[in-house]
Amino acid sequence: MKSTILRSPRDVRFEEVDAPRILAPTDAILRLSATCVCGSDLWSYRGIQAVEQPVSMGHEYCGIVEEVGRAVKNVKPGQFVVGSFAASDNTCPHCRAGYHSSCEHREWMTGAQAPLLRIPLADGTLVATPDVPPSDLVPSLLAVSDVFGTGWFAADAANVKPGSTVAVVGDGAVGLLGVLSAKQMGAERIIAMSRHAARQQLARDYGATDIVTERGDEGIARIKALTKGVGADSVLECVGTQESMQQAIGAARPGGHVSYVGVPHGVQLDGAGLFFSHVHLHGGPAPVRNYLPKLIGLVLDGKVNPGKVFDLTLPLEQVAEGYRAMDERRAIKVLLQP
Amino acid sequence: MKSTILRSPRDVRFEEVDAPRILAPTDAILRLSATCVCGSDLWSYRGIQAVEQPVSMGHEYCGIVEEVGRAVKNVKPGQFVVGSFAASDNTCPHCRAGYHSSCEHREWMTGAQAPLLRIPLADGTLVATPDVPPSDLVPSLLAVSDVFGTGWFAADAANVKPGSTVAVVGDGAVGLLGVLSAKQMGAERIIAMSRHAARQQLARDYGATDIVTERGDEGIARIKALTKGVGADSVLECVGTQESMQQAIGAARPGGHVSYVGVPHGVQLDGAGLFFSHVHLHGGPAPVRNYLPKLIGLVLDGKVNPGKVFDLTLPLEQVAEGYRAMDERRAIKVLLQP
Repeated sequence: MKSTILRSPRDVRFEEVDAPRILAPTDAILRLSATCVCGSDLWSYRGIQAVEQPVSMGHEYCGIVEEVGRAVKNVKPGQFVVGSFAASDNTCPHCRAGYHSSCEHREWMTGAQAPLLRIPLADGTLVATPDVPPSDLVPSLLAVSDVFGTGWFAADAANVKPGSTVAVVGDGAVGLLGVLSAKQMGAERIIAMSRHAARQQLARDYGATDIVTERGDEGIARIKALTKGVGADSVLECVGTQESMQQAIGAARPGGHVSYVGVPHGVQLDGAGLFFSHVHLHGGPAPVRNYLPKLIGLVLDGKVNPGKVFDLTLPLEQVAEGYRAMDERRAIKVLLQP
Repeated sequence: MKSTILRSPRDVRFEEVDAPRILAPTDAILRLSATCVCGSDLWSYRGIQAVEQPVSMGHEYCGIVEEVGRAVKNVKPGQFVVGSFAASDNTCPHCRAGYHSSCEHREWMTGAQAPLLRIPLADGTLVATPDVPPSDLVPSLLAVSDVFGTGWFAADAANVKPGSTVAVVGDGAVGLLGVLSAKQMGAERIIAMSRHAARQQLARDYGATDIVTERGDEGIARIKALTKGVGADSVLECVGTQESMQQAIGAARPGGHVSYVGVPHGVQLDGAGLFFSHVHLHGGPAPVRNYLPKLIGLVLDGKVNPGKVFDLTLPLEQVAEGYRAMDERRAIKVLLQP
C-alpha cells in the first residue's frame, strides 16, 4: 500500500510501504474511513522540529476493524472505531486517573495518513460506535480522534464551568474546538483571539461571544478591558509558542486557569513571573481516550459538529497538497479520503 | 522606637526610626505581641536578592490594636488581631475569588520586626480573635500570619484531599507546616524530604509517614519507588529554587498537582518538559487572608500547634542573632519578642 512519508522539511511523499500487520496479540488493523493533517505535523514539515530520517506521518484516524490479534476482546472485525494519537492500555494507574496519554504502556501513533493502520493495545485504545455511522458523521468522528478531544481537554484543563469567562489563544482547529468545548461546558462568555475572517466566523458558529484581533500585550490589555480589568477565568492556549503562552498567562485572572495543549516549542517560563501571575497551569498531551465515549456520544446525538473544522477535503494521494494548504493557512484543517 | 533595618547583605541593625502613625483613614497601628524572621528574609540577607538601599524588615505579626483611622469599622483598640504579609481590601474581585494576595489594592507589608506596625486597609487585612488569647497561643497565632497560612495554601493549591499521597519538598517552616496542613486535610501518606534530624522529627510530629533524604533525581526515584512507580498525587514545593522545582515536578504523578509557594529565584521552566510531565502547577504568594478565620479557629480550638516551628526565641533587640541562626540553619524559625 501507499503511505505518507516526510523525507525532509516540506518533502511529503505518498509512497509504497509494507502494509501493516498484527505484530502483537493485542494489536488490531483498521481500514481507515478518513484521516487528516494535524497542526502538530507542521512542526516537522516546517523543519522547526528536526527530521533526521524519513518519518511515517499521521496520528488521527477512525475506521473499520479489519483484523484483530488473538488477545483482543473489546472490538471485532467490521466495527467502526475511533482511537487517539496515544495508544493506551486503559487499565494502568495513569489511565484509571484519566491520563491515558501518560499510560505506562503508551505508544505514540504514527502512520495514520494511509489506508490501513496498526493499533497497539487495541482493547484499551479503541472505542467502537454502536453501529457503522453514516458517512456524513465521519468527519466529526475523525475530529474526536484528536482535535476535538484536544480542544475538550483544553477547556477541561482550564476548568471551564457554567458561567465562566473564557479566552482562547489560537484559531487553529484545536482552538476553534476549544471554543465549541467551552460552549458545551456552559461558558457564558467566550473570547476568541483571531485575525482571520473565516476562522472568526467558525469561532462565532461554535459559540464565541467576542473576537479579539490584538496580540501580545495589546491582546492582554483588550481581554482585561473586556473583563473590567479582572482577566479571564479560563484561558486555553492552543498554539505552543512563547508568545502564545505569555499571552495566555497574562490574560488570566489571579487564581484563574490556563491550559496548554500544543507541544511547546522553545517555551521557557520564568518562575517568578508565573508565581506572581497566580494562575493555575495545566496541560500536556490530551488524554483523548478518556473523553472518547462522551465525545462520540455528542457527535452521534447530533449535539455538536466538530467536523466543520475540515474546510478542505482531498483524496489521500494528494496529501502533499494538504500539507501545503495548512502550512499556508489556506485551510484550517485538511481531511484526507483513503 | 527601634526597628529592624537591613543595610546591606548580612548587616542587620536594630536602630532608631520614627514610630509609625496613621497615614490614611483606613490604617490601624498595632502593638505587636510577637514577630519573627521569615525564610524569605534570607534572600536579601544573603544578597541573592539585591539590597540597593536600607530596607525595613519583617512582615509577620500579631498583636493588640493601638489606634485606628476614622474609616476603620471592623477592628478597635484593645483587640488582638492577626494579619497577613499582604494587606488587602477583602472586597475586590480578586479578594472575593480568594486571592487576597493579588488584591487590586494590595500592599506588601514591611517593618514588622519592630514593636509597632502600621497596617494599611485594616478592615480588610486584620482578623480579630474573640478575646485576647493566652500568651502560650501567641506563637501559633503568629505562625498563622504567614508560615502556616503559606503551608496551608501549599497543600490547598496542590489539591490535597482525604486519602492523598503527598510529598513535601523543603524542610523549612513552610514545608513543615505544609506537612501539618496536608495531615489536617486528610492526606493518608505524607512524604517529607529532609536530611536534618530535628526537622525530620518535627515533620513526623506533624504527620509525615515517610522521610526521604535523597535529593534531585535520586529523590524523585525514591518517591517513585515509595508509590509503586506512580508518583505522588500532590507535591508541595516549599523552597523556590530550580532544583527544588524540578524535584517537585518529577515526583508528581501525571495528572498530579504541584504547588509552589516560595518566590522562585532563578527558576526557568522548560515548556516541553512541563507539558510531558502532565502535572497541574499552581502557586504564588499565599492568600493567607483567605485562610485566617479557619486557621485562627484551628489554633484557638487546640487542634494544631504550628508555633512549634519556632525553635528559638529571642528578644527583638537581638534580631541580628536571629538572622544568623536561620542563615546557618541552627534554627528552623526565630520568634522575636518586642
